[in-house]
Amino acid sequence: MTSLPADPLDQGGIAAFALALRRGETTAEATTRTYLARIDALNPRLQAYQHVDAERAIAAARAIDGLLASGTDLGPLMGVPVGIKDIIAVDGMPTTNGSLLDTAHITGPEGAMVQRLKSAGAVILGKTKTVEYAFGATGVNSVRGTPCNPWDSAVHRTPGGSSSGSGVATAAGLAAFTIGTDTGGSVRIPATLNGIFGHKTTVGMWPTDGVFPLSPTLDSIGPLCRTAADAAIVHSVMNEVEIPLPGRLKGLRLGRPTAHFYDNLDDQVAACMAAAEAALVDAGVELVDVDLPGVEERVWLFRSIVPAEMIASLGRDLFEAEQDRMDPVSAARAAVGLTVDAVTHVAAQRRLETLMWEAAEAFGDLDGWISPTCPCLPMPISEVTDAAHLKQAMLPSQNTQAANLYGICAISTPIHHFGANLPVGLQVMCPAGYDSEALAIGMAMETTFGPAPKPDLDAFLG
Amino acid sequence: MTSLPADPLDQGGIAAFALALRRGETTAEATTRTYLARIDALNPRLQAYQHVDAERAIAAARAIDGLLASGTDLGPLMGVPVGIKDIIAVDGMPTTNGSLLDTAHITGPEGAMVQRLKSAGAVILGKTKTVEYAFGATGVNSVRGTPCNPWDSAVHRTPGGSSSGSGVATAAGLAAFTIGTDTGGSVRIPATLNGIFGHKTTVGMWPTDGVFPLSPTLDSIGPLCRTAADAAIVHSVMNEVEIPLPGRLKGLRLGRPTAHFYDNLDDQVAACMAAAEAALVDAGVELVDVDLPGVEERVWLFRSIVPAEMIASLGRDLFEAEQDRMDPVSAARAAVGLTVDAVTHVAAQRRLETLMWEAAEAFGDLDGWISPTCPCLPMPISEVTDAAHLKQAMLPSQNTQAANLYGICAISTPIHHFGANLPVGLQVMCPAGYDSEALAIGMAMETTFGPAPKPDLDAFLG
Repeated sequence: MTSLPADPLDQGGIAAFALALRRGETTAEATTRTYLARIDALNPRLQAYQHVDAERAIAAARAIDGLLASGTDLGPLMGVPVGIKDIIAVDGMPTTNGSLLDTAHITGPEGAMVQRLKSAGAVILGKTKTVEYAFGATGVNSVRGTPCNPWDSAVHRTPGGSSSGSGVATAAGLAAFTIGTDTGGSVRIPATLNGIFGHKTTVGMWPTDGVFPLSPTLDSIGPLCRTAADAAIVHSVMNEVEIPLPGRLKGLRLGRPTAHFYDNLDDQVAACMAAAEAALVDAGVELVDVDLPGVEERVWLFRSIVPAEMIASLGRDLFEAEQDRMDPVSAARAAVGLTVDAVTHVAAQRRLETLMWEAAEAFGDLDGWISPTCPCLPMPISEVTDAAHLKQAMLPSQNTQAANLYGICAISTPIHHFGANLPVGLQVMCPAGYDSEALAIGMAMETTFGPAPKPDLDAFLG
Repeated sequence: MTSLPADPLDQGGIAAFALALRRGETTAEATTRTYLARIDALNPRLQAYQHVDAERAIAAARAIDGLLASGTDLGPLMGVPVGIKDIIAVDGMPTTNGSLLDTAHITGPEGAMVQRLKSAGAVILGKTKTVEYAFGATGVNSVRGTPCNPWDSAVHRTPGGSSSGSGVATAAGLAAFTIGTDTGGSVRIPATLNGIFGHKTTVGMWPTDGVFPLSPTLDSIGPLCRTAADAAIVHSVMNEVEIPLPGRLKGLRLGRPTAHFYDNLDDQVAACMAAAEAALVDAGVELVDVDLPGVEERVWLFRSIVPAEMIASLGRDLFEAEQDRMDPVSAARAAVGLTVDAVTHVAAQRRLETLMWEAAEAFGDLDGWISPTCPCLPMPISEVTDAAHLKQAMLPSQNTQAANLYGICAISTPIHHFGANLPVGLQVMCPAGYDSEALAIGMAMETTFGPAPKPDLDAFLG
């Protein structure tokens, strides 16, 4: 059995690491080497990374140490090792987009978001696995491989998608945090199913150049972190705003949807959610019944917008010629785009515009809306691997797609400590641009709920 | 024969009127009454107006006179009578959108643009005729009637479209100026074919709420004026910028497209254009050969974007149920939208985004690009009235659609004084946001070319 060094950020996260680095108690290089060692030990079974670039990461970490020693402090992400979802370009690393098709040129060269991470001193360890073209919520990728959910070493369960490798890498301590993308839930779902914190940013808040354009209308980016406190630091650096402070739960007014979001709940999810809501009320939160606009329209809206945009990105000729080489579920979902007509697509786009206003209106004086992030637990991948299981494969995104349709921000925070044996998440949706407020609520919940249990990784050692 | 009072703005346009108004030599009410008398005399044959609201116009003019007398000066459009294209809502006046179908609710209530005109003291005389849903370049509307081109009283010739009534009203002195919309040339074409000045504003410069959304992607608004000098005043009021000063021709570098824009030219158009170009060179303009990006793509781009957006605006059910009650050419063009698929629509939208950048790049250090506005003269409407003549009906927009695809601004200034017996126009395209510069070039050309001959209206008196 390979030995497993301790996760360098396990205690205190990014803030504690930042302090230790500046006190000379650790270095970026040592931290990077530790993460690389953990990847060596765990990635063969967990399959979180598509590509690891040890040489480049160590060189970058060494340079960061030199810079800090010379008196230049780039801020709280300096020397922090990060994994990047493999639909996002990083210069010098291959981009597969989770596909066997050669489409790196569509993703393009490294964009402003990765450049900002680098300029802030983050050390890129490599590219994390993704559902093919980020088009799927389970995490299954039958052509490039499906990461293992670290919560079950006996059964290969869904890691959640599409930012599957990002979720597993953060949960298993194979990076300090990771970057994912979220078109219908692809940050929040793997965050939930791996028992970590996820932040889907407001559409347009993070630049999307150098990111495969699954659906420019709905795509957003976001970090998958151990904690809300870590995500608050990432948000502050990426958006050049103050680090959000933990909020207070007392006095918060949170909407609790009366329809749709509590449908199809797994018993453990329902139990954890009820216990978490009780804890919130105990802490002084007022839960208010709300009806969210247009939730019954999500199927036709996604169906009318995303597949056609995806095929336009890929190129119709390429898709028609090579869809047999694609993952069958991703290909089947994309193929819907060939059947959508332009009038329907335009009508859907216009409905989104009105829906954004209706959502803003529906928030009223509420601080946010809560729901279970996913109605289900991680599922055996055998239940969702082929196109015949499309309905089951859509279940994880039942509660996440609304935030994409509204163009708002949302977080998912773990609540499986309320009694589940597999991860469960609670989603908080906040108005567009209220990302700092969402993170403040997340930090307050995290304090109230206490630290989330972590998976036992020993069984995954090579 | 009805008597025809002189056009109050015939000498010196808006600037001279503004001075006379403030000197007490005229009043808004007297001026409005004169235009209403001219409409009474000429509109029965010219059919420029769909709806005239004499009572409301006189009441507004009287109030404006009172306001000015009380010491409040709203600026250079105060008391200026204007006609509004009938796809634009004016509270208290009916909106037909040029159709027999009841679609006023789609256009909506009066928008910010009309409110701005009113706040600036302009007096709205009524609604000018339009091609049905503004979807056509000839001006023909077989359901609501086709205005007569005032340049030929013997043959009913195309007034140009879709702002047909706006073009005729300004040319025949039935308003000081008029407002039109331009999705593929609908301001510039009627300006050209009626021998007046037209200004297609940069996309997004004027608000489009309260305007029928033919194609939100490509729609722009603009005034049809006697002169560039009048258009410069309108621009200044609507955009709250300084009134552009006449530019100098000497030293201007203008691109002259080597391909596409000089195809299919009528002999008189070719001769006028050659003479105008010689006059420009004599005045010190440097003409530079240019190739404009993507002109060969205009057919697929318009076809993939506009009809589907139009049907989405109308509602597919309404269109399918009632297209038989529509003008056959407009209906045939719109019906194309039912055959476009979403992937093609998305691909066309994305091509537009790159084309805008390519156009900006292609301007380089040039001040603008010139071309004949329309390759043709006003045509007998019998040649373009049914769907069998679609190709002929598309000819007027051959040179205007490019500016819509690029999202830039453009003007059309008359050049029929160089030897044509029917109106001919010269188009100047300028980069996005360079509307003031385009108007300055227009004013300089107008000074160099001299006043454009006007139509003889006697034969149209009722």
